[in-house]
Amino acid sequence: MTYVVTPWEVKGEVDYDRLVKQFGVEKINDIVLKRIEKHTKELHFMLRRKVFFAHRDLNWVLNEYEKGNKFYLYTGRAPSGPVHLGHMMPWLFTKWLQDKFEVDLWFQFPDEEKFLFKDNLTLEDTTEKYLQDNMLDLIALGFDPKKTKFLIDTKNADLMYKEACRVAKKITFSTVKAAFGLTDQSNIGEIFYTSMQAVPAFLPSVLKNKKIPCVITHAVDQDVHFRVTRDILPKIGHYKPASIQCMFLPPLTGSSGKMSASEQSSALYTTDTPEEAAKKIRKYAFSGGQATIEEHRKKGGNPDIDVSYQWLRMMFEPDDKKLEKIYQDYKSGALLTGELKEILIEKVTYFLKEHQKNREKAKKQVNKFLI
Amino acid sequence: MTYVVTPWEVKGEVDYDRLVKQFGVEKINDIVLKRIEKHTKELHFMLRRKVFFAHRDLNWVLNEYEKGNKFYLYTGRAPSGPVHLGHMMPWLFTKWLQDKFEVDLWFQFPDEEKFLFKDNLTLEDTTEKYLQDNMLDLIALGFDPKKTKFLIDTKNADLMYKEACRVAKKITFSTVKAAFGLTDQSNIGEIFYTSMQAVPAFLPSVLKNKKIPCVITHAVDQDVHFRVTRDILPKIGHYKPASIQCMFLPPLTGSSGKMSASEQSSALYTTDTPEEAAKKIRKYAFSGGQATIEEHRKKGGNPDIDVSYQWLRMMFEPDDKKLEKIYQDYKSGALLTGELKEILIEKVTYFLKEHQKNREKAKKQVNKFLI
Repeated sequence: MTYVVTPWEVKGEVDYDRLVKQFGVEKINDIVLKRIEKHTKELHFMLRRKVFFAHRDLNWVLNEYEKGNKFYLYTGRAPSGPVHLGHMMPWLFTKWLQDKFEVDLWFQFPDEEKFLFKDNLTLEDTTEKYLQDNMLDLIALGFDPKKTKFLIDTKNADLMYKEACRVAKKITFSTVKAAFGLTDQSNIGEIFYTSMQAVPAFLPSVLKNKKIPCVITHAVDQDVHFRVTRDILPKIGHYKPASIQCMFLPPLTGSSGKMSASEQSSALYTTDTPEEAAKKIRKYAFSGGQATIEEHRKKGGNPDIDVSYQWLRMMFEPDDKKLEKIYQDYKSGALLTGELKEILIEKVTYFLKEHQKNREKAKKQVNKFLI
Repeated sequence: MTYVVTPWEVKGEVDYDRLVKQFGVEKINDIVLKRIEKHTKELHFMLRRKVFFAHRDLNWVLNEYEKGNKFYLYTGRAPSGPVHLGHMMPWLFTKWLQDKFEVDLWFQFPDEEKFLFKDNLTLEDTTEKYLQDNMLDLIALGFDPKKTKFLIDTKNADLMYKEACRVAKKITFSTVKAAFGLTDQSNIGEIFYTSMQAVPAFLPSVLKNKKIPCVITHAVDQDVHFRVTRDILPKIGHYKPASIQCMFLPPLTGSSGKMSASEQSSALYTTDTPEEAAKKIRKYAFSGGQATIEEHRKKGGNPDIDVSYQWLRMMFEPDDKKLEKIYQDYKSGALLTGELKEILIEKVTYFLKEHQKNREKAKKQVNKFLI
């Protein structure tokens, strides 16, 4: 059973327990959940269900918060194609964190990253077309423009490049070779890039001239960037960033790897019409059911490998009781795969309709988020 | 007889003829001088005397110029300390070129470079203290603010970083390893840096959305950066930059290596008082004379190794007849080392007084040169 989890590739059936050890992150446990709940009054279902399953230094962040030293949130998106539901999952959670803790969010758009790492993308694709498009998805989620800043690498390089150089001076090629698997054939933009991804983890502290704790919300594949960042920041006078890390929303086609924007059949895009989405779910969503209705009624299905069920669990059914009923009904055979898919389709339809309405409105709001 | 000429180190007695072959540049010959003179009506003494001794593609630039496709000039200064006379030499020539050809000059201040490459410099030193100081020396030379733009890497990164990424994508670590001698222990800022130095060689073309030939005036130690740049630019739709390259003004203390701002006794700074300058010349200027006056009168001196004579030849005595007389008188023994030094001191005194007056005035003009 092999798998790969790097910022550029997620392949195979990810063993999250092993990842926790491999990366040296902490599992989210009931103690830290209780501490969060004390402030948020309720727990987001992605926390209750351990979709956000790992963290670094959350206890320290909560200590600081309780002393009156508020943190800020940092997450991001490297424009490289249309946004799919797998991207949205951590952003929905980030929005919840922002609302509950009333904190700032710095959202990075490293619009050079995918250009540097992928042969087939131009800078025009990443810094214009997809950047403009992807910003709408963020805004449509309802982030408060007073508390949310978009940091765009190429456009805000006047703020970022200098700070990236402070980081870069402390990182040797040996380090990025070992951490990211780069080689002598890697281009020098790829080699430098992690310094740019480090910047939002301390830029607000530079701009406000005081040390502010940072919590990065991200899928676990980005952890390696922030391991390097955490090594460096104390050396240049900043806090190590904390983080809270989620699993991958599985691709429609099965539970291994992560959803990929470049594989049409594995992803639902935020701009798919509800009809297209329904069609994809009916056609592609990997089923944990049996081969025939008769067999399914008799033996029952397996919700743990059923993508529709997993999507409900991870993203679309906040109500634990409803989810439990679906789980049991599917397991017993009372709920057929087709019926389960329709439950998901109803949720997705509602989500897409709302999101697409908000996405239209977002076109007029972009400026409010720019620096 | 060994010597080293890299952007970070110049050591030993430089064999410029060998460098021409090593770097693959062309020597400045009478044909290209004639072509320049056709447009400038006269030849700057640094051309006549082959202080600017090598070039790349000047014939092509002149072809384009004659077709009405004007070039622009690009040169620069990495802030890392006070400016000395060795830095000023190519800038004086650049000013002459600008005036004669009536062309734009893009002057780069890569204010991150020396921070990245030197342990003992902070970003505050390079991006603030020395940047502010060094800009005054440029302005004091009388560059036309309407035709001259200062491009400051950290401050203008919003224009530059994106373009640097286009360059960086085409350069592997192998290439910078071979070209610059970087190693696995080099920091990732150093590794990326040459992409930033490439940007002024095509940025004006990007901003004006038309291909404009670029002529870089620089000391020969920077050639390696632009060899790499010349390899890359055609791949991203730009002209290869042309260049015109000078020798190093020798340090006061002798004719090997180049003047170093960090060795007090080898350099005259633009902010030295005329008295300090005179004292340094009297005390340190390496002499081609004999041990005693009697011996000097009898055997004569050697102007070719005498630093005072070389400074007159390369920078301070534009009049060929006067220079020739000094040469012959020194060689014959009629002119003593002390007398030769006084000739130089008079020139340097005049230069420093004028420059320091203009440098004061420059403090109010900085904004005119910023982008």
